[in-house]
Amino acid sequence: MIDWQLARGYRYAGTHGGLHPEPQRLDLALLVSDVPAAAAGVFTQNCVVAAPVHLCRERLPRQDARGIVICSGNANACTGQRGLDDARRMTAVAAEALDCRPEQMLVCSTGVIGRHLPMPPIEKGICAAARELDGRAAALDRAAHAILTTDTRIKVSTQRCRIGNADVTLTGFAKGAAMMGPNMATMLAFVVTDAAVAPQELATVARRAADRSFNSISVEGHTSTNDTLLFLANGAGKPLDGADLVRFESAAVGVCTDLARAIAGDAEGATHLVTIEVEGLRDDAEARRVARTVANSPLVKTALYGADPNWGRIVSAAGYSGVNFEEEYLSLWLGDLLLYHAGTPQPFDAAAASAYLRGNREIQLRLRFTLGTGRCTFYTCDLTPEYVRLNADYTT
Amino acid sequence: MIDWQLARGYRYAGTHGGLHPEPQRLDLALLVSDVPAAAAGVFTQNCVVAAPVHLCRERLPRQDARGIVICSGNANACTGQRGLDDARRMTAVAAEALDCRPEQMLVCSTGVIGRHLPMPPIEKGICAAARELDGRAAALDRAAHAILTTDTRIKVSTQRCRIGNADVTLTGFAKGAAMMGPNMATMLAFVVTDAAVAPQELATVARRAADRSFNSISVEGHTSTNDTLLFLANGAGKPLDGADLVRFESAAVGVCTDLARAIAGDAEGATHLVTIEVEGLRDDAEARRVARTVANSPLVKTALYGADPNWGRIVSAAGYSGVNFEEEYLSLWLGDLLLYHAGTPQPFDAAAASAYLRGNREIQLRLRFTLGTGRCTFYTCDLTPEYVRLNADYTT
Repeated sequence: MIDWQLARGYRYAGTHGGLHPEPQRLDLALLVSDVPAAAAGVFTQNCVVAAPVHLCRERLPRQDARGIVICSGNANACTGQRGLDDARRMTAVAAEALDCRPEQMLVCSTGVIGRHLPMPPIEKGICAAARELDGRAAALDRAAHAILTTDTRIKVSTQRCRIGNADVTLTGFAKGAAMMGPNMATMLAFVVTDAAVAPQELATVARRAADRSFNSISVEGHTSTNDTLLFLANGAGKPLDGADLVRFESAAVGVCTDLARAIAGDAEGATHLVTIEVEGLRDDAEARRVARTVANSPLVKTALYGADPNWGRIVSAAGYSGVNFEEEYLSLWLGDLLLYHAGTPQPFDAAAASAYLRGNREIQLRLRFTLGTGRCTFYTCDLTPEYVRLNADYTT
Repeated sequence: MIDWQLARGYRYAGTHGGLHPEPQRLDLALLVSDVPAAAAGVFTQNCVVAAPVHLCRERLPRQDARGIVICSGNANACTGQRGLDDARRMTAVAAEALDCRPEQMLVCSTGVIGRHLPMPPIEKGICAAARELDGRAAALDRAAHAILTTDTRIKVSTQRCRIGNADVTLTGFAKGAAMMGPNMATMLAFVVTDAAVAPQELATVARRAADRSFNSISVEGHTSTNDTLLFLANGAGKPLDGADLVRFESAAVGVCTDLARAIAGDAEGATHLVTIEVEGLRDDAEARRVARTVANSPLVKTALYGADPNWGRIVSAAGYSGVNFEEEYLSLWLGDLLLYHAGTPQPFDAAAASAYLRGNREIQLRLRFTLGTGRCTFYTCDLTPEYVRLNADYTT
């Protein structure tokens, strides 16, 4: 159960909305701000996007958002005009229950692509959720469960920071299963805060926090049609600016990084959370490109699963990332073990390297280049037979 | 056993060169032209390249090549100056045995990255191979075996074509296990012909044939440090040009496509050879980009393994390929079944789709766009638990 102090002025509900066959399964969540809130979002870069993403993009950023309705089990993607109508209808039903305008509500979905939503039970579920809204941690716990697909646990993070002479709180929750293409095709994250932030500033904070967290994790590189990060800020008074806004952004990055690491660590079938540190490239974008290529290599990921310190796969993945370098500019560490130094293989204790991989759930790769000051921290997981099994037989 | 008519004027050998622990295993191959031959190559696009690739690039194209020496089990990649010296030494030993200059010999390696070659047994192996050279199919069969790593079978293709009033023959052999990042890190292919082709023309033919064959297959998208395609042409007389050269190129594409399909179909752990036809994009490069992204998606590949017609994964992979399109420009077929038409999901018989996937080793995906005339045919395989097992524990 979540026992942290939560951002003030928000209520949550999680209920069964008829998407999953088991009637006990929570699959519909509602999140509401007591007063109109600034809202901003960051969305998938896929050019095939789900209906709820179209709708959120149309409505954001805005000053007067009231809440978000979320369903899991069906992505409402590749569903044409009817999918768009269904997404609008979800916000209209929620707005009626909450006595606000439909445009004040946002909507997200996650699940199978290409199927129409079962609207009658969803509409009933939204009305039931509206009646159950509650500001306590138990309600957030239910909402955090209701957005999950093949995740094995909820992901929640709260941070407080002192701004001026007041404390502000940011509370986030997310689902993953896999980032960039989970089994059920989405990562979703929601961060609410009681700080006062103007919509345009909130959009900037959301974009920057996403770059340093959710855009720095990868499971298998398949970008979803539904990926969404939404921020709500319902604080009263003068919006944050200057150093206060910087402090707020730093807390937002903290919450998002917690959630992103939790997603990578709970990826489908994963047995390792892998942190990839890349440094010394010409700029941060190059470092990210190298990190992402290493993170997405099935050969690297299977070796890590097998506790096989097959470092040539890591170096060769860096080599095909599209970032140009000579081998003598690269050194590689696995944990504390130096495997490759300035283009030359180093003698190392393969048994110790293997034991490091076998004995730790969280492992570190470090690639150091000597070409500049660009750097990136990236999170991924290993590739296991369980991942293949989970994904080999999903819709049938 | 190979029973085709082979290109004239070439001899082959396959022997044990001390790379594999089992003394019976063939791991060293030699291919020799009886007379100096035009030679050209196409190499990996990885910026970390193996020592033999450096050496071949330095020596090609040329007019007077005599042969190629190849070892399997060790990639001689990420091995620094000593690796380069070893690669040169391999060609020098072969040249001495064949009574030619070292620069007339080419060299390839495939296997683990980051380990030095065991030179004494390799040198002995090269001398043994030189004594066993033979122009008959049985010798080519041994050479084709000696270049394999985790491949389960040899890949050989021969084509004849009538040019003027003579027949010319092209004989090719290859190893894969996986393209773009096999377990042991390489795809290699060799095509020899008794046609007369000038080195620069041969380089153009090799590049075009590679684009339409080896560059149109993928297993998991990990580009090797060693990928190499070499062409030798030892025909006497006036080099081919004009329509004759076009006919020759078409036969070269045929041989390379045979070999490429054989590599994709024999990828590590694969149970399906998947042909992806993409058509109707703005140009061929866009079509290739879409095809490659679909081919490399682990979510698509696991669904195909599981006989799960989860077509949303295919559409969403196209969506994140970087090629811009609206959903209504795309239709998708699995075999003969239309699953998605102009952006709208179609009712289809899921049991029949699943039976198609379960019942056929060779399966077809077709993505039709309505944006232009660009097209591409791409080959890949599925992703299976066996792939993970094979790659989880290779060097340890």
